[in-house]
Amino acid sequence: MSENRRIEVITSKENENVKRLRKLHEKKHREELKAFLVEGVKVVSEAIEYNLEKINLLVFSQEAVKKYNEFFNRCVNLFNSGKIPRIVQVPERVFEHISTTTTPQGVLAECSFFDRQLDSLDGYKRVVVVDAVQDPGNLGTIIRCADAFGFDCIVTVDGTADVYNPKVVRSAMGSMFHLDIIREVKKEELLDAFKKKGFYLYVTTPYADLDISEFCVDDRFAVVIGNESKGADKLFLENATRKVKIPMIGKAESLNAAIAAAIVLYELRKK
Amino acid sequence: MSENRRIEVITSKENENVKRLRKLHEKKHREELKAFLVEGVKVVSEAIEYNLEKINLLVFSQEAVKKYNEFFNRCVNLFNSGKIPRIVQVPERVFEHISTTTTPQGVLAECSFFDRQLDSLDGYKRVVVVDAVQDPGNLGTIIRCADAFGFDCIVTVDGTADVYNPKVVRSAMGSMFHLDIIREVKKEELLDAFKKKGFYLYVTTPYADLDISEFCVDDRFAVVIGNESKGADKLFLENATRKVKIPMIGKAESLNAAIAAAIVLYELRKK
Repeated sequence: MSENRRIEVITSKENENVKRLRKLHEKKHREELKAFLVEGVKVVSEAIEYNLEKINLLVFSQEAVKKYNEFFNRCVNLFNSGKIPRIVQVPERVFEHISTTTTPQGVLAECSFFDRQLDSLDGYKRVVVVDAVQDPGNLGTIIRCADAFGFDCIVTVDGTADVYNPKVVRSAMGSMFHLDIIREVKKEELLDAFKKKGFYLYVTTPYADLDISEFCVDDRFAVVIGNESKGADKLFLENATRKVKIPMIGKAESLNAAIAAAIVLYELRKK
Repeated sequence: MSENRRIEVITSKENENVKRLRKLHEKKHREELKAFLVEGVKVVSEAIEYNLEKINLLVFSQEAVKKYNEFFNRCVNLFNSGKIPRIVQVPERVFEHISTTTTPQGVLAECSFFDRQLDSLDGYKRVVVVDAVQDPGNLGTIIRCADAFGFDCIVTVDGTADVYNPKVVRSAMGSMFHLDIIREVKKEELLDAFKKKGFYLYVTTPYADLDISEFCVDDRFAVVIGNESKGADKLFLENATRKVKIPMIGKAESLNAAIAAAIVLYELRKK
């Protein structure tokens, strides 16, 4: 039997690793280090299952080692077989310092960026474009719905919330590891790529003539989810193959942005 | 020309009216006074348009009188013609004390309860039953979707968030004034009423055989939206005419509760 590798113990907030993890709360440092944080048993489990090679480091609080002991042992096995490079244990107060939530479970991972370049569009048939969605919770919900309804890829346009923002990661509930992500592209380049690769482009707007429930999805398409208050950008509207709307029957003037996006993705789901 | 009625000015937090409004933050006092608070220009406007006879009092902060002057003048006209009983002006610090939000717009109304009794079920064809939904934002979103998709009535079952909770009122965005509400009924009594009045009962559960997209809505029905984590109560499942599920294609195990509810109401919309 091979000797077990060592699980590190860190007790100081001044430790360089702790400082690095704390830095990853901010986009500027995430871009510099090309890494982000994943927190909570459920989402870290999804990262292990679908994105193992991108995990750089796992952190457990001392309480979490006891509380989630089965999960901890599974991680230690992966560590011993060399599939996870490092595991660190920290006291609660250090975990709270690193944590991105106010009620931490005591389990967190540092992962490397895993987004792709625009040229990988070749491989997809069903793409969600997110343009200028500001709220991280809304972006996370859109990623979760895109997964649930069989989309291949999420593309975020410049000016959208960061997919690696801890709130996005949390509200996506692991779905971000189930599909491919291309992020922060320029609208013009994206439209060019869609044209070259033969994608239909669907854009939702309350001013459309066509109900989203009344049309058949074509072979290869992208659907644009626009900003919470302003909707889809003019450039997308001008280049739309079809403009569609959600049928509204009652007196409500609009739906919450995440709800509207979910209904659009549901109607365009893989059947 | 008749002499204008007087708009009151209140400057002290110790004023009885201010104390009463502040009390309405709590369910216990709302039940006692049979009144609730509506806040923000948009939602107060909807209350004026659809529920005018239930408005007891309007409050404007001094800043809001200037900022929303056109709206204020419209309210003063309604006051002068006797359609709104009272208008009160308060300084910002008093408004902040009454306000149910952290960033108040300076416009608020006290309204009387307007929910109905179970026997008014006779008049409806499309009913949403909300059972044990805990999050006020989720309940508000469900009310907004029920409105948008042409439902007649929302019934909340005992143990559900209070429809008159300020967070519910806010997230419903005025939709609560567009449909009828029956609240905090007992499951057994509700099921009895549905049977007597010939309602079909649809219940969503991930364990159903039937996709919600694949069935036709009958004449007169109620659909049950269950608790965020536990789903619909056993009693509803046992009494369901049909159990249905949302088709999930990808690797996501579930959807956010509000999103799932929205998709169900969308599929069962009035066509």
